[in-house]
Amino acid sequence: MAITGVYETVLYAADVRAAAAFYATVLELRLVDGPDELAVAFRLDDGGVLLIFDPSRSSLPGRPAPSHGATGAGHVAFSVEDGTLDAWTETLRERGVEIELEKPWLNGGRSIYVRDPAGNSVELVEGDLWPA
Amino acid sequence: MAITGVYETVLYAADVRAAAAFYATVLELRLVDGPDELAVAFRLDDGGVLLIFDPSRSSLPGRPAPSHGATGAGHVAFSVEDGTLDAWTETLRERGVEIELEKPWLNGGRSIYVRDPAGNSVELVEGDLWPA
Repeated sequence: MAITGVYETVLYAADVRAAAAFYATVLELRLVDGPDELAVAFRLDDGGVLLIFDPSRSSLPGRPAPSHGATGAGHVAFSVEDGTLDAWTETLRERGVEIELEKPWLNGGRSIYVRDPAGNSVELVEGDLWPA
Repeated sequence: MAITGVYETVLYAADVRAAAAFYATVLELRLVDGPDELAVAFRLDDGGVLLIFDPSRSSLPGRPAPSHGATGAGHVAFSVEDGTLDAWTETLRERGVEIELEKPWLNGGRSIYVRDPAGNSVELVEGDLWPA
């Protein structure tokens, strides 16, 4: 009896459709549900799901699932294949996305940080940054 | 060149240590860094990382990483091993955690929902709820 992994990771955006366009077009995530005014769902290659909700709607009572909804900049990090972070950096710049920070980590991992249209901090990571 | 999965999933809690105790003791996640006043990190069995930040600290400028920090109830779902959701339900009740909702999904998956000490909506899932 154990938790095996994170199944749904959630971000919030007042404009779900604008956020959905960013994750679908700029980051090339695979859309599997929506977008509508409430939410959008993306499926990652490892089976995990990224959900983006409009917090003004997801926080309303009486929905089929317990209410939730946060405001302010959230954060998510995605893993990219080894050896592709420089290509991602170039591709994101070509797509008009500002790289807020490029960061090498002490253990050899590397990250780049951008912002999604809602202001969430989005990190792409090559390698592993945290203790095993 | 592809994003392979979510590497870091982030929740927020004003009291990081109280949240850390919940995830470590009640959900039995494996602590790998902290907790301190800013943050705590847990490693999942599939290699993913769950981070919990105090948004009043993580949102300050001048940190080594771009600032972020959200307030209000967030949401996360964890996968549990098939056949263990009923045992989880019983165990959580024994540990004094109220089950806010038990929900069967149309495709055969099942979820239970609880709240962490910061009010985040925490879901445990058996099976798969989203389109592949």
